[in-house]
Amino acid sequence: MKEEKPLVIIGIDPGTRTTGYGIIQVFRNTHKVVDYGCIKTPLKSDAAKRYLIIFEAIDYLLQLHQPEALAVETQFLYKNVQSALKLGMAKGVAMLAAARKGIPVFEYSPTKAKAAVVGNGRAGKHQVQAMIKILLNLPLLPEPEDAADALALALCHIHTIKLG
Amino acid sequence: MKEEKPLVIIGIDPGTRTTGYGIIQVFRNTHKVVDYGCIKTPLKSDAAKRYLIIFEAIDYLLQLHQPEALAVETQFLYKNVQSALKLGMAKGVAMLAAARKGIPVFEYSPTKAKAAVVGNGRAGKHQVQAMIKILLNLPLLPEPEDAADALALALCHIHTIKLG
Repeated sequence: MKEEKPLVIIGIDPGTRTTGYGIIQVFRNTHKVVDYGCIKTPLKSDAAKRYLIIFEAIDYLLQLHQPEALAVETQFLYKNVQSALKLGMAKGVAMLAAARKGIPVFEYSPTKAKAAVVGNGRAGKHQVQAMIKILLNLPLLPEPEDAADALALALCHIHTIKLG
Repeated sequence: MKEEKPLVIIGIDPGTRTTGYGIIQVFRNTHKVVDYGCIKTPLKSDAAKRYLIIFEAIDYLLQLHQPEALAVETQFLYKNVQSALKLGMAKGVAMLAAARKGIPVFEYSPTKAKAAVVGNGRAGKHQVQAMIKILLNLPLLPEPEDAADALALALCHIHTIKLG
């Protein structure tokens, strides 16, 4: 008899300063949070060094948890082009880490990720954190927001493949 | 007697579709173009796969030519935030490739790179190509523009360290 294996999904919310991550294991109809948190880059390090820190941390998480897929946000709105450029650099590095290991990358809009968790694409940050806590049966509110967003992305991917 | 080694500088003009590169060797007062060209990603490949192609190609160039520094453009102006985001992803991957090998990354504004080559920060693409051909003693106009821009960045870095 073939043993059924749990499905592991990683969500990444990239950022130059703080990159959130969340890993969810799905087994039949149960979800289990394996790990979540954030990768922080030192304030004074130069840009290239930051991307190296982000890359190596994600690479380590992928090696450790062997996820089947990586979910990341598709952004459309930014304060300005400079923030879009910086976010792009962190996002490119995250996508590269997955591609190097042959892990498929799925992109979801923030609206879709929020709707998957709160049922409302315009939900606030706190609402997302509160619903993630309930849905994933966490003892505490997931902190920081970036980690909660990463868990929301992973959950959004799980809902999408279950519906698909 | 210690043998004097030439200095090798790589310039990278990142882009999701086309990433230009140019490698210049400096020995005393002579410049020699070692290689230039562009990394093209297949039109239909997904985003993560494109970054993997760009990363692996740059990684290979760094391995082959062992440059002392990588010069890249600091962009300020974009058509829109989506193009800034895409460019950021390619740029992040280029910077990461260098950081992983301990190669320092230097950023120059397009104005500074053009001024280093043409003596005019507002020079057109064709002027940059024509001056690069003369300054680096190339038999042909460097094509595509992305490769000429990458050579201009490498040359800009060489001028900067010589003046520094």
